[in-house]
Amino acid sequence: MLSLKHIPISSFNENLAYLHKDCTAYRVDEIKSLTKIEIHGGVKTVYAFLQIVDDAKLVKPNEIALNNEAFNQINLPEGANISISLSTPPPSLASVKRKIAGNILSSGEYSSIINDITSRRYSNMDIASFLVASGSFMSAPEVLSLTEALVGDNVFHWDNEAIVVDHHCLGGVPGNKTDIIISAIVGAYGLPMPKTASHSLTSCAGVADTFAVLANVEIDDKTFKKLVQENRAAIASYDSLNIAQASKQISAVERQIGLTQQEHIAASILAIKLAAGVTHLLIDIPVGPKARIKSTTEAMRLRKLIEYVGDMLSMEIDVVITDGSEPIGNGVGAVLEARDVMKVLRNKDDAPQDLLEKSLFLAGRLLEFDPKLRGGQGYHVAKEILTSGRALDVINKMIHAQGKAPQPQLGHLTRDIVSNVNGVVEAIDTARINKIGVWAGAGQYAGAGLDLLKKVGDKVEQGETLYRIHSCNSTDFAYANSVVEGYTGYEISGHNSNY
Amino acid sequence: MLSLKHIPISSFNENLAYLHKDCTAYRVDEIKSLTKIEIHGGVKTVYAFLQIVDDAKLVKPNEIALNNEAFNQINLPEGANISISLSTPPPSLASVKRKIAGNILSSGEYSSIINDITSRRYSNMDIASFLVASGSFMSAPEVLSLTEALVGDNVFHWDNEAIVVDHHCLGGVPGNKTDIIISAIVGAYGLPMPKTASHSLTSCAGVADTFAVLANVEIDDKTFKKLVQENRAAIASYDSLNIAQASKQISAVERQIGLTQQEHIAASILAIKLAAGVTHLLIDIPVGPKARIKSTTEAMRLRKLIEYVGDMLSMEIDVVITDGSEPIGNGVGAVLEARDVMKVLRNKDDAPQDLLEKSLFLAGRLLEFDPKLRGGQGYHVAKEILTSGRALDVINKMIHAQGKAPQPQLGHLTRDIVSNVNGVVEAIDTARINKIGVWAGAGQYAGAGLDLLKKVGDKVEQGETLYRIHSCNSTDFAYANSVVEGYTGYEISGHNSNY
Repeated sequence: MLSLKHIPISSFNENLAYLHKDCTAYRVDEIKSLTKIEIHGGVKTVYAFLQIVDDAKLVKPNEIALNNEAFNQINLPEGANISISLSTPPPSLASVKRKIAGNILSSGEYSSIINDITSRRYSNMDIASFLVASGSFMSAPEVLSLTEALVGDNVFHWDNEAIVVDHHCLGGVPGNKTDIIISAIVGAYGLPMPKTASHSLTSCAGVADTFAVLANVEIDDKTFKKLVQENRAAIASYDSLNIAQASKQISAVERQIGLTQQEHIAASILAIKLAAGVTHLLIDIPVGPKARIKSTTEAMRLRKLIEYVGDMLSMEIDVVITDGSEPIGNGVGAVLEARDVMKVLRNKDDAPQDLLEKSLFLAGRLLEFDPKLRGGQGYHVAKEILTSGRALDVINKMIHAQGKAPQPQLGHLTRDIVSNVNGVVEAIDTARINKIGVWAGAGQYAGAGLDLLKKVGDKVEQGETLYRIHSCNSTDFAYANSVVEGYTGYEISGHNSNY
Repeated sequence: MLSLKHIPISSFNENLAYLHKDCTAYRVDEIKSLTKIEIHGGVKTVYAFLQIVDDAKLVKPNEIALNNEAFNQINLPEGANISISLSTPPPSLASVKRKIAGNILSSGEYSSIINDITSRRYSNMDIASFLVASGSFMSAPEVLSLTEALVGDNVFHWDNEAIVVDHHCLGGVPGNKTDIIISAIVGAYGLPMPKTASHSLTSCAGVADTFAVLANVEIDDKTFKKLVQENRAAIASYDSLNIAQASKQISAVERQIGLTQQEHIAASILAIKLAAGVTHLLIDIPVGPKARIKSTTEAMRLRKLIEYVGDMLSMEIDVVITDGSEPIGNGVGAVLEARDVMKVLRNKDDAPQDLLEKSLFLAGRLLEFDPKLRGGQGYHVAKEILTSGRALDVINKMIHAQGKAPQPQLGHLTRDIVSNVNGVVEAIDTARINKIGVWAGAGQYAGAGLDLLKKVGDKVEQGETLYRIHSCNSTDFAYANSVVEGYTGYEISGHNSNY
């Protein structure tokens, strides 16, 4: 038996257990490779990877220390009696191997894989194996099976609501923060919209990051339900809600290995929305040469897949394919995007028109889920709600209810990227803009990002600013500066703007 | 700038960096996911994953602590000035994504991937992605590219030696420790055989584990070269030699995710032997219903692949396909296998005949690489060397030169698995025997394993012992006992022996 100790180390979703090299309960000196153990003593078996420590101040030979992740799971006080054993690989890894070999997996196999991920029997390496193996090919029924498995046990029920809506954009377009505006309009109209928002995965800001500039988004299940019932709308970080847990671990690995397969994203989004109790979902697939989806053929294939899964799981889904050829709005990065969103909601003259129009279009489609609304009326109703200031009232109510955010500052290290020719902006490379923003620190720091002063179709003179880089620290700033020299992402009158 | 600290934690091949949550040089409170950083200050940039610590006794806000792996790499004293930056993903990960999408990668791409793995720019997750992606399909030229990349910079040269031999068995057969006997015979004959041996990956014992029962196998490049020159033979753990480094990291991940693809193993083995300066290689592919290779068709495909890579890299390769339908020898597990090996070398009456014959057959093939030896003479020369005691002299010289081992004890916790019927042993399930051995602790503990008292063709009476389980600790022993009940791995006169 070993005595439990907690070492306050956060390892980002991986359970680690620390044993002294002269551990009294287990001979660790013969262990030559990464080893998973089972930790017994709590209500549930906890799985963790071994780390061997040669310092009795950290962990004594008769102790087992756990990092934050494992300690929180075992839910026992320090000093508790613990026994350990070598962990055998979870049986569902056999299914992962079958997938590597090119097989179609059954619904039961996906269910076992996701259960084992949820109980942390999979290491991040194992999750990566599963993602890569299934990433090369999944049949539509497999995507359905994965979606069902990812929903998990905790599903929100919105009593007496026939229609519960949400919107999700399948990403890849910088600055595209219609969701917050849509929430306010739909909330003002009166349809419940329990918006589950993500933090940035590979982009400059997720919806959760942008709304976090305005309000607290880290709210628990109970608060979220209460707020949606009171205001018809609330925006919570999906991470803070206790739903579709396996999807979080999968996202963390996807982020790390930089793998974002459409099938996984579709399954994950639909599972989260199903778990949130959404009955009617609008999905926006932006298509552009540098967007995540590059052709309408590809978008159509994805649309059919989503519709199939939606139909099988009795979710009403409306998929729209939109223009993803240039950034939406001017700001790219949480603080700058929140500024644009508030300009639209406040009906400011300098509000970005593309963001305004896209938000009205999508909000209109959502409103038309309501059978009481005549076909084609959605856009006009949405516009009336916005221009009348009712959407602004709702967003202020939401901010007040969720709690005002600490208001992160815009990055104070700035550099203007100017045009080296006279001409017209002919194209903006959205993937490049996203990369420069990430290098400037966006996605990590709310205040970092790019302020796009020129958009496609704008005239520019030599020396005029195309966009401004904002960074929060000198390391990121130096890096963004060094890479932007190569290629700014702007094409002006037939020339790439190489600064 | 941060001050360097060393925390003596061993994380099995992964670099970890610990920062305090209030780190003075880098805002870590906004980091939400596993993040790789670059550590500057040493001769080479060191890459590590961040762990966030909330305890100033472990790491102060102005410090950066490194685990053993990262600290050894940075090669600076504690207190040194260190700066860090966010690490961008290595460019070669784009090639991994191309492989996931089903493309054939170029030689340059394999080279970049392996270089990035060697410099630890890949996390274990990234390595897993690469293995799974390439595991589903690799063309023969790709296996060649991977092999070339894995050889690395450090290649042994054996001056004035026209023929440098080695033997490798592509595994999957318990107890198959011909290598040690072969080394002694070939060494006695006078051909240089610098044997690089592996520790157990998924088996009950690797050649390195078994020879480690007799002698020290953890020897460095210089000692290894000297010993081969002096005795014509030496057996070193490949882990202790500074060759084909990336292959070690890949093996560690393979072991963890339990993925062993033939293409990877072939590339890794050939690369290690090339790096060891081997010119003539004998490869043994055992085929059996429960061996790693299950059919002669599969074995033939693998043989052609190995011959192709060997030809392209100017290595003389002789591939033999052998019977892998039952374990070789009686012992399974390092201590028991070493006992069998020494019985053969000592010409004991109770030496396992199958191990003896297979060793002579393979040693004979190796000797025939010598153009001076007439075709078909190898076996007889090998037999003469063994029976005359010259092989025993060489093994004793090798043990003396490498240093005697601390002689691990055979596991004292034993259980006899007896037959429940009268009859004849018709088959032994090698995969099952390997698993029960691993569950009993073999592969981790030298003294654990199975002693097979009955082999295929032997008569048994009800109640007679089929094999004896040896464990070194009660956890492993209890586990092996609980699983063996289901299925012992023996088939006796048409009945599975369910104990």
